[in-house]
Amino acid sequence: MSTKKNDLTIIVGCGTLGSQVANHIYNNGANVIVIDRLPNSFSRLDSSFGGLTIVGDACDFEVLRRAEIERATTLLAVTDFENNNIFVGQAAKLLFHVDNVIVRVIDKSKEAIYKGMGISTVCPSELSANAVIEFYQGGKNA
Amino acid sequence: MSTKKNDLTIIVGCGTLGSQVANHIYNNGANVIVIDRLPNSFSRLDSSFGGLTIVGDACDFEVLRRAEIERATTLLAVTDFENNNIFVGQAAKLLFHVDNVIVRVIDKSKEAIYKGMGISTVCPSELSANAVIEFYQGGKNA
Repeated sequence: MSTKKNDLTIIVGCGTLGSQVANHIYNNGANVIVIDRLPNSFSRLDSSFGGLTIVGDACDFEVLRRAEIERATTLLAVTDFENNNIFVGQAAKLLFHVDNVIVRVIDKSKEAIYKGMGISTVCPSELSANAVIEFYQGGKNA
Repeated sequence: MSTKKNDLTIIVGCGTLGSQVANHIYNNGANVIVIDRLPNSFSRLDSSFGGLTIVGDACDFEVLRRAEIERATTLLAVTDFENNNIFVGQAAKLLFHVDNVIVRVIDKSKEAIYKGMGISTVCPSELSANAVIEFYQGGKNA
């Protein structure tokens, strides 16, 4: 799988989350292409980042094709806009047959729908709630 | 410790994160008081939530006193406003001597400063980045 597609990862959204992931994955040797509508967003990438950046709206399939989505093994849709993330994630999975797709969601209750399509989700508020609850329980037991 | 202060938890900010934690902690038997500037925010609490709610700005110590901060064992400052969270967290720790204080931050790089004051931090974007990276690595190994 990896060999066939050369392990390309596309990251849609270069905000705090997207840029952290892009920097990490690039530093670990992956091919990374980051898409964002705002060119300024790419300033969040490390100065050593050597992946490609594309200014554009990933909801436009032409932009996804410019990012060579046909050969991508992973797509991460992590903009601040849940609906855009879901749209791009579904397109990646169902139209472009990307193996691993993860989308950032606000409403974790819809997770089951995406799971059924083979799309994984990440929900920042849920992760934070779990971390806070863990801290709270740790404090109580201290 | 718990007996002395009756295990009161104050949650500042009733957004997606604050409300999730409030519901969870309340359902597990804790005394919870939630503070938010916007009364509508409390609609995020479960209909079964039986803790107290206070409309007000927690940066105002009078509001914190109304929440009986003197007897609180835990304070969670999890609004969308990092500076307010830090201000309230420091007040809780240094002025009101709350044992367990956690604040939601955007910039994880300042964590060491807060740790030195005995304040814990939660950074949603970092948690999400770790989750996405874990997913990415899992997908690669699949």
